[in-house]
Amino acid sequence: MTNNNKKGFVLWFTGFSAAGKTTIADKVHELLKHNGNRLERLDGDIVRKNLTQDLGFSKEDRDENIRRIGFVANLLSRNDIGVIASFISPYRAQREMLRENVTNFIEIFVDAPIEVCESRDPKGMYKKARAGELKNFTGVDDPYEPPENPDIHLLSSEHSPDDLAKVVLSFLRTNDYID
Amino acid sequence: MTNNNKKGFVLWFTGFSAAGKTTIADKVHELLKHNGNRLERLDGDIVRKNLTQDLGFSKEDRDENIRRIGFVANLLSRNDIGVIASFISPYRAQREMLRENVTNFIEIFVDAPIEVCESRDPKGMYKKARAGELKNFTGVDDPYEPPENPDIHLLSSEHSPDDLAKVVLSFLRTNDYID
Repeated sequence: MTNNNKKGFVLWFTGFSAAGKTTIADKVHELLKHNGNRLERLDGDIVRKNLTQDLGFSKEDRDENIRRIGFVANLLSRNDIGVIASFISPYRAQREMLRENVTNFIEIFVDAPIEVCESRDPKGMYKKARAGELKNFTGVDDPYEPPENPDIHLLSSEHSPDDLAKVVLSFLRTNDYID
Repeated sequence: MTNNNKKGFVLWFTGFSAAGKTTIADKVHELLKHNGNRLERLDGDIVRKNLTQDLGFSKEDRDENIRRIGFVANLLSRNDIGVIASFISPYRAQREMLRENVTNFIEIFVDAPIEVCESRDPKGMYKKARAGELKNFTGVDDPYEPPENPDIHLLSSEHSPDDLAKVVLSFLRTNDYID
């Protein structure tokens, strides 16, 4: 199998629910796949099914969730695989733990105002959270600690997912992760 | 990084505690590393710390344990990495689940009579299990279902770890996993 990665990396998309993490991550995935890069996608659906079925949304469970994903992401990255991971990952300390433990960790802040995310609400989750039917929902009754110094800062309410995906690819080229 | 694997694989060492799984797996690791193969080692210590801290030794927990490890092993194997995994993995259905879900799964039965394993008892685990201080210990008060048709069958009370490691390498060459 070909692999046009010059080294492994972990693109870690963090931000509110409905900020655009998955949409942008999917675009990035598409562009890189087309480019012949060896990739694995890690997101909530994949990970909940295979790795973290037992975990809920308490602080403790969220920490354990991110720790397991970080372990897997690092195994792939240090073997020259590109990982595309999208998780709310609301706590700064979690993401710092990842930066310390994961080979070539790249923090991408998908930044949109909570009002914009809430008005999108594609799965009706914010509505449920406001109604008290969902507990510990980030941005409603659980905190989000924005990155202070992300590797890439994407203003997702101001630019199109296509344009933002190109920003990510350009970062990977400039920093010598891909050709 | 070089990688002399022709494709990814998962060497899955199953057998009683103290049957010699880890010793043989370490020898195989050494030989393959020397050969320039890209490898990851998964064993109880690595996995308990990073992936399965929450799990005990009930049937249900053992199943979940193997399911998580299988997920990770498959991510690596399908990206051309060689995985060396040693786990008691006592249930046939668990190992069949792995065979179905894990790319290039190779079942290696490290076969020694329970009496031999118990007489070795390097960590005093059998002693504790016989004394009732450890519950659900495979071979004492928990079952082991031997593979009926393993890819490699190693009689570890009759041959040296060095010789058995060579059997594994020869299997990998013959079946076109490595040069």
